This record gives sequence, structure tokens and C-alpha cells, in this order.
Amino acid sequence: MDDRKEIFLDHNSARATRSEAVEEMSRLFADGFGNPQSVHDRGQRAAEKLENARAEVASLVGADPEDIIFTATGSEANNMAVKGIARARKNRSNRVIISPIEHHSVAIPADSLRKEGFELVTLPVDSTGLIDPDSLAKAVSDGAALVSVIHASTEIGTIEPIRELAAICAEKGVPFHTDSWGTAGSIKIDCKDIPLNAMTIAGQNFGGPPGAAALVIRKGVPMKKLIEGGVQERNRRAGQENIPAIAGMGIAARLALREIGQTTAALVPLRDMMIKNLIESIEDVILTGHPEKRLPGHASFCVKYIEGEGLLLFLNQKGIMAASGSACTSRSLKGSHVLEAIGLDAATAQGSVVFTLGPENGKDEIGKVIDEMKPVVSRLREMSPIYREKKNGAL
Amino acid sequence: MDDRKEIFLDHNSARATRSEAVEEMSRLFADGFGNPQSVHDRGQRAAEKLENARAEVASLVGADPEDIIFTATGSEANNMAVKGIARARKNRSNRVIISPIEHHSVAIPADSLRKEGFELVTLPVDSTGLIDPDSLAKAVSDGAALVSVIHASTEIGTIEPIRELAAICAEKGVPFHTDSWGTAGSIKIDCKDIPLNAMTIAGQNFGGPPGAAALVIRKGVPMKKLIEGGVQERNRRAGQENIPAIAGMGIAARLALREIGQTTAALVPLRDMMIKNLIESIEDVILTGHPEKRLPGHASFCVKYIEGEGLLLFLNQKGIMAASGSACTSRSLKGSHVLEAIGLDAATAQGSVVFTLGPENGKDEIGKVIDEMKPVVSRLREMSPIYREKKNGAL
Repeated sequence: MDDRKEIFLDHNSARATRSEAVEEMSRLFADGFGNPQSVHDRGQRAAEKLENARAEVASLVGADPEDIIFTATGSEANNMAVKGIARARKNRSNRVIISPIEHHSVAIPADSLRKEGFELVTLPVDSTGLIDPDSLAKAVSDGAALVSVIHASTEIGTIEPIRELAAICAEKGVPFHTDSWGTAGSIKIDCKDIPLNAMTIAGQNFGGPPGAAALVIRKGVPMKKLIEGGVQERNRRAGQENIPAIAGMGIAARLALREIGQTTAALVPLRDMMIKNLIESIEDVILTGHPEKRLPGHASFCVKYIEGEGLLLFLNQKGIMAASGSACTSRSLKGSHVLEAIGLDAATAQGSVVFTLGPENGKDEIGKVIDEMKPVVSRLREMSPIYREKKNGAL
Repeated sequence: MDDRKEIFLDHNSARATRSEAVEEMSRLFADGFGNPQSVHDRGQRAAEKLENARAEVASLVGADPEDIIFTATGSEANNMAVKGIARARKNRSNRVIISPIEHHSVAIPADSLRKEGFELVTLPVDSTGLIDPDSLAKAVSDGAALVSVIHASTEIGTIEPIRELAAICAEKGVPFHTDSWGTAGSIKIDCKDIPLNAMTIAGQNFGGPPGAAALVIRKGVPMKKLIEGGVQERNRRAGQENIPAIAGMGIAARLALREIGQTTAALVPLRDMMIKNLIESIEDVILTGHPEKRLPGHASFCVKYIEGEGLLLFLNQKGIMAASGSACTSRSLKGSHVLEAIGLDAATAQGSVVFTLGPENGKDEIGKVIDEMKPVVSRLREMSPIYREKKNGAL
């Protein structure tokens, strides 16, 4: 293997777009992609592309095509669902329930709702990041305007018991939203089996281009609009549809659905190899998140006595690309609310490193990363006063 | 000319993306475009693309790169500005002032503000769609939370006296936003000369791809966030940046700035040829909007005694593609609020047809459209009971 070859283990932050999707986008750019609102032929062709993609995306998660609203990003879909549903149901209840490991695009809108008068309830999670359905049953016993729980944290990989959580809400008639950014296209989801009301999905997680994401929202769920204006997306989200990106997302959804089994079968052993070898070969490395109930390609750790940022920079020099947490906050220099929620102290949480594997990664790459990490971690620890103290104490 | 060749005169609704922009996007898709929030090399390359595009887009309108917030659509930028600024300044004033010819993505958010307690003032326009600066001076005399006036209506083409309007607001210390969707890249704009506080621009209007637009917002203007979450765009707009689309918008901005003079010089004579010949060759055709103060490639009419929709469908059969008004509302089946505002009766407004010309259109195409329109209009009028009545009355 060429030493200078990039090893990309940061698929959460920017996964390559599937070549089939890029080809379709290129065709659309060359032909003039049109505007589905136009009555002429070019508009009609665009409308057809839009509805085909809607059907493909719906199929990926077992949803009704009519329940798909295309957005530009997962963050937009999360904002729309959380603020839109809660505000539309304020007359029913002023309680909003979330988990402490939500993505910022759920957590911050929920906090905005709190500032405008909602009661914000944050459910506890255990040390693996799992929510206990009983805690939700208790929190929702007097009803709520909305419950929103992430399907799987992209920071610690833990997959939540969404079906049980959704069922508890359904029984109470409370709308349940889940942020499936990290799961749709990565694990099998069938909305027909889960009584959820709203779900955020993003094409980028399964090889769609940036610029297309979606909110699945079931008929009859009231929701105030986030972006108002034109009548696009059944009058629920204004703004011209990004036809090339949406068409690309549709193609990626079709391919993801077809390949989901084999992708999982390829990624899980790599992930487990990485977890096992890293923990065995470097002392004081903690796996974050659940050991089994986790995203197929997701391996996240805290390396004690060092800062994750330093580790990333050293790894980058070796051509290895990883992340320290959520891509949306890595530059905000704040401690991770997710790692805090699972009970890690601030010093340990500093050493966070997240590897998200993709279909192009191989065993040799994982082996190389583990080999490279050992000396890098040693060097960083030698520079760390806390580590020196600990070592001296141990001697 | 091949008779079956498409004549595309609907550039407002879906302009072709510049090939230079498409090429850059293809390169980024092939190389892995990255996420600017990542600390590794791929992330840094993405951050560089983002900042280069920001500088190019800023140059197009003479803005400071730091004042550019990238969004997905012009509608998103309009919603962010109108709701965000007004809500952030509610403690100063509860008045919001707009024109009656705003795009729906300004008009509907403004109406939402009214429903939440703002006083909404709508300025009058004359029969060409122009706003009298004196009417704004009067409306703003007691201050306002926000004034938002469209730079040029994409429905009737009229260019508003933005500089004067902005100056009136600046004198009163009231933030002035303009929706420059239709003007940025089409006519020369220099923000250094106009005391405006916020401006919506969209890459699609000047050959950028869908998926990238921007809000220019000057430092110090308070604004509540529309999409909350990650720290992207200086913490003013959450959600992963669409790097390929933004890079494409940057390239389109650079090209548009370089070519704006020659594009205008090419489009204005075509536009004027179309206006003159259509009005001369078909009776009872009215130009909508201002005869001179109008967008370079914009020719809009009301053809009396017929429905614009029917005209569009007949023209489409001849390979000629045009629009009946705003692309965002053409399927909403409502009368146009813009045509009503300039004083047209509902029956006349029904006959609206909008041609928006682009750089690839030629004189022969305009000639062909005029030739084709004559028999189509005659045929539609023969089917129109109002026209028959009128004709019988005239005999």
C-alpha cells in the first residue's frame, strides 16, 4: 500500500457521493434540469425526476412517498420537525422531550422552545448512551407536544430502541420524531413497523450528494412551516427543489436499499477489528457507546491523557482522516454534550476520536491505522503533564 | 433552425448551470469534497473552497466576504432575513414594512410576523410597479423593525430605486433588506454604494447550480437564526455546507461579474425587440412592469381575453417554454398578488405570460416566438366567451 495514500475514516462528515448519483446529476446539468413548478415539458421532466426520487427515498425507509418532504440538509429537517411540530401543538401540551445525546440541530431548537415557554424534559441515558423506555413512559405520561430521540448517535454510534420508544408515544397520542441522519441507508428501517410520526434522513449518509435531505412526516401531523413562501413540497417547505441533488439522493437510496445487507456484513467485522485491536494494543483507550447496538461502520473512543484534536492532526500527517465528534461542532471548541451525558469526565472526553468507516475501507487500512496510532498516542502522552503524573504515581 | 428545437425563455425558473461550475462540481465529487468543519486535510481543502467562493460571491455585489452567509435557496435567505431580523428587533419596533410585489418567501413570512403581533405595512406601488420613496419615508418615520423591498420583481421585471429606499432607512437607523434574487448577477450592484443591511442573492440567477444561495448581512445587524444547530457560517446558519454547489456558485459569480456588461448589452435589445413586436403585432397585449427600469432579459405581458396557462401549453407544443408568473406559485392556481398590486383586474391578470431570456437566446428565436404567438392567441381567443362578447360589442 502506498504510504501516502489517504485513509479516509471520516464518512460521517463527508462521504463520497456514489458515482451513479454523480452521473445522473451530470446528465441533468447537461440537459437543463428544469423546475417542477413549470407547466412546460422541461418542468414536467423535472417533476417526474422529483417524484421518482421521492418514491426511491420513501422505499429506503418503508415510508409513503406522500410523506416525504425534501429539504437541503438534515439540520433543516430537524429544525422543521422539532420547532414546527411543537409549536403547532402548543395548545395541546407545552412539554418537549428529547434525549441528552441529540444532534445540535435538535438540541438547540429544543432549547429555543424552552426559552419561548415550553417545558423541556431531557431523558437520562446509561453509560452506553441507551435510553430506558421506562423513563420515556414516565416523562410522557401527562402527554407532550413532541418527543424527539435520535435513532443513532453519530458521535458514539449507539442505536436507540426506536420501535419501543415510538410505541410508547403512539399509545399516548404524542408525535414521535427521530433523527435518522446516521441510520437511514446504514441499517434497515421500515416505517411500516414503527409507529413514528416524523423522521429526518439525509442523502449524504448513504452516498447521495450534499444538498438533499428529507423529513418523513406522516399525514395528519400538524407542523408549522420553517421556510415559508412558494407551494413546493405540498406547501410544507418553500424554495426551489434542488432537482439534481434530489435525483442523486433517489439513486443513492435505491442502491443503499439493495446493498444494505452486504454493506453491513462488510463493515461490522472491520469495525469490530478496529475496536478490539485498538483497545488491546493501547492502554487506557475506552470504547464510547454501546459495544453491540451500534452503527455498522462506527468505532468511537476516548484515548485517555491526550487531546483528540492533537491526535487527529498527527494522524492527518500520516494521511489518516478521522473526527473528534460531530462534524457540526468540531470547530466550536466546546466539550461534547454527548460524552458528558454518558458520564465521562471532561478530561477523558477531551481524548475523543471517532472513526466512521465506509465501503471503500479495507482490513489493511484498519491495520495501518492501529499501527500508526500506537506511536502517535505514546508521543502525545509523553507531552501530557497528566499522563506523566499518572505514570510517576504508578511507579 | 430546427423546428423541434426547444426555445427556452423561462430562465427565471431554471437557468442552465454554467459549464465551468459543473466542471468544478464534477472535480469535487470525484476528489471527495470534504467538510470544512473537519480538521484534516480534506476538511481544510473544503474550507478553502468555501472561503474562495465566499470571496467571489462577495465581489459580485461589492460586499465584505465576512457578511456572506450561504443558504440553500433564496427562499431560505428571505425567511432568515425577514423573520430573523424583525424578531431580533421586536423590542425596538413592532412595525414591518414591505412592498406589495414581494416574492412569496418575503410576503408570507411578513404575514406570519403580522399574525404574531407585528404591524405589517405594505407600501403602494404605481402601475409600473415602482415604489415612491416618499411613501417609504412616511411609513418609516416612526421607525420599524425591518423594511424589506424586492430589488426587482421577477414577475414584472421592474427595478426598484433601492439606493434611495436604503438611504431613507439608514437615516432612520432601520435595517433594510432587499431580495436581489433576480438582480444579483443580472445588473451591476455595489453594496459599498448602497446603505443596505441585508440582501438575498441566489446562484441560480447567474448560472450557479441549485443548492447554493446567500444572505448578505452586514455586521452588527441582529438576526435570530432560522436553522439552529452546528456552528457553520459563523454560527448563523446550521447545516453542512454544500461545498460542490457553493464552489459552483463562486465560479458563476466570478464569470457573471466579468460578463455582466456584455450580457446586458446582448439581452436588452432582444427584450426590447420582443416587447415592441409583440405589442405591435397582437392587439390587446399589455406590457407589465416598467418599460425601461426593468431586468435586462425580462419581457412580461398580459394577453387580454385568454388564460396565460393555456397560452403556455400551446407554446410548449411548439417547443417554446415560458412562465405565467413566479415559478414558486405557478401551480398554486391563485391570482397574482403582483399583478393585482399594479392595478390589473383579475380577468386581465389571468392572461399573464413571462419570458425571461438568457445568454443562449438569439434574435431568430424571439422572431419565431412572436410568429408562433399570433395564431395561438387567435385560437385561444376564439375559444374565449369574453373575447366573443367584446368582438360582437365592437362590431
